[in-house]
Amino acid sequence: MAGQDNAADYFGPSYVRKISPYIAGKPISEVAREFGLDEARIVKLASNENPLGMPASAKAAIAAATEDLGRYPDSNGFELKAKLSEKYDVPAEWLTLGNGSNDILELAAHALVRNGESIVYAEYSFAVYALATQEVGARAIEVKSRAYGHDLDAMAAAIAPDTKLVFIANPNNPTGTFVSAAEIEAFLAKVPPHVVVVLDEAYNEYLDAGQQYESVAWVRKYPNLMVSRTFSKAYGLAGLRVGYGVAQPQLTDLLNRVRQPFNVNSLAQAAAVAALDDTAFLQRSAELNRQGKARLVEAFERSGLEYVKSSGNFVMVRVGGDDGAGARVNLALLKQGVIVRPVANYGLPQWLRVTIGLPEENDAFIAALEQALK
Amino acid sequence: MAGQDNAADYFGPSYVRKISPYIAGKPISEVAREFGLDEARIVKLASNENPLGMPASAKAAIAAATEDLGRYPDSNGFELKAKLSEKYDVPAEWLTLGNGSNDILELAAHALVRNGESIVYAEYSFAVYALATQEVGARAIEVKSRAYGHDLDAMAAAIAPDTKLVFIANPNNPTGTFVSAAEIEAFLAKVPPHVVVVLDEAYNEYLDAGQQYESVAWVRKYPNLMVSRTFSKAYGLAGLRVGYGVAQPQLTDLLNRVRQPFNVNSLAQAAAVAALDDTAFLQRSAELNRQGKARLVEAFERSGLEYVKSSGNFVMVRVGGDDGAGARVNLALLKQGVIVRPVANYGLPQWLRVTIGLPEENDAFIAALEQALK
Repeated sequence: MAGQDNAADYFGPSYVRKISPYIAGKPISEVAREFGLDEARIVKLASNENPLGMPASAKAAIAAATEDLGRYPDSNGFELKAKLSEKYDVPAEWLTLGNGSNDILELAAHALVRNGESIVYAEYSFAVYALATQEVGARAIEVKSRAYGHDLDAMAAAIAPDTKLVFIANPNNPTGTFVSAAEIEAFLAKVPPHVVVVLDEAYNEYLDAGQQYESVAWVRKYPNLMVSRTFSKAYGLAGLRVGYGVAQPQLTDLLNRVRQPFNVNSLAQAAAVAALDDTAFLQRSAELNRQGKARLVEAFERSGLEYVKSSGNFVMVRVGGDDGAGARVNLALLKQGVIVRPVANYGLPQWLRVTIGLPEENDAFIAALEQALK
Repeated sequence: MAGQDNAADYFGPSYVRKISPYIAGKPISEVAREFGLDEARIVKLASNENPLGMPASAKAAIAAATEDLGRYPDSNGFELKAKLSEKYDVPAEWLTLGNGSNDILELAAHALVRNGESIVYAEYSFAVYALATQEVGARAIEVKSRAYGHDLDAMAAAIAPDTKLVFIANPNNPTGTFVSAAEIEAFLAKVPPHVVVVLDEAYNEYLDAGQQYESVAWVRKYPNLMVSRTFSKAYGLAGLRVGYGVAQPQLTDLLNRVRQPFNVNSLAQAAAVAALDDTAFLQRSAELNRQGKARLVEAFERSGLEYVKSSGNFVMVRVGGDDGAGARVNLALLKQGVIVRPVANYGLPQWLRVTIGLPEENDAFIAALEQALK
């Protein structure tokens, strides 16, 4: 046995040691410290958060729920599940609550995939799919994208005999691409019944009227489908951590076996119950997003910048033709107090992803970008 | 390939399908519904929560932090780590934040153990050790307890060539037993350097002055040791979910590779920062606990009931000599509006675990227990 000083070499399977942790959007406080800027003047458009913040309804629910925080949360999320159950017309046994939908994605990997089996996802799709794959020591089958989005035909063809799970993001993050309901239906019909599909709809509430579809109807049809949703985006509750999965009971039961019993905290449950009813806030958020997206797209076109048509609350834009472009322009933006998201870690070093903010935040970004590109 | 109607048979590894999920303490609302009781009159002594609830300092911190909940939490927990760093005189790189210490325990299993390797823990120790073992498909080496507590000599001897992780709870839950600093030091010296020990100190703040020890000094000495702590017990923040691990950087780095980036929510971080400074609240909580424990023990002795000497904020008491005793007395208590914790799932069907509450809650429990045992 080797000496204690080499102990670090022993810990953990090699597949864990190879993981590069998730890179979060830079916090405002960190940018202020690093660039000597005033926090109040920094614009953060880096994490696809709702620029309206939390709805007032949720804030009131939190204030009412702070009395009882010495108690553990309800491990079964009775009230929130009752609300969701009503919204989707499914039994509570079809629902899994998560510490954000990030938790749902990881629970699926932990519940369904053994070390050595495979998981299918698309190139340029959400970073957590690759992380969850690495965490369970699974083999990643990353399928080439088509115009920065999911190529569902290629994904269906890529499913291997040892594939246990497929992740699909619709709309996709960080590219913003969308696949139509017809394409998803055709895909689901092709997937073998023992392979689970997680359809990650974190940005669903931003879809245009013409794009909207009823994914829970597919859940009723396919026991191997789980739809995941979050309160972190349009609902404005990113700081509280709450998301959920909808699937038939066999699949739901499995995820709940690996779920931490108190994964969703009490205030998150209370705020989500309130936010779910707040359709006025959702509509305002979606409308603000539509206007802001139009404004950004117009600026990109005026500057002759390539961008990907987005169905989310963000737009990915190519800021140069060389592989240093994203990092260079990002730094120039940071110096002006504007935080966006570089996507080099997705294999897109010429691009940046910008969240749609308040009108004045969008304007500040556009001005800073034009300055940076001079 | 079999038909879709048998799909449930396919999903997930067999080791996941075998998991029995954690059984939480019955929520007050559920007992009220089930037994037709008034919620306000129910006494819950089932989850080792602080009967004082959350400290006022933490409540104030929450109120101040609710403005920014549309933003994601700080994924690196800058402020809370700075506070902990100061408290323990360790660099921030030695700290892992968790969604409760439950998260820390599971991160350790996910980061360190492959399917088929083994994990060592004691009979009658915290249920999450067995769950985490099952989740990663590891083999459980459960070591016979000694007087309901950890037999550390036997545990050291039980470490197998494929053992990657050992869990020790001190004090132990649900039995309340304590192993001395000298015993732990002797154990650590025997553990091979490639085997990680997680020393779970969820109830550390309730130790008597004579029992207290400096576990972080061992962390400095042993790169294979992680100490875990929680804000859910003496700090009164169970509903918010925050715990942490202290270990040298190699081990900490590994846990952070499998940690969900936003595992600790913004309000939990803010409240924990405030609570950590609130030594007056901690002292009040410990003192209340000492008095309440003496009161319960006195009642058990008066009734001739066997109990295990506890170093935590709960006591385990034998309520009968037959294996139906725990369930029977538990039901009789529930009917009187008193919720405690049956421990039959730990292999202790003759026992109940009762959390030490406020004086009037302890009295209500004692009266209800005497009634139930008549």
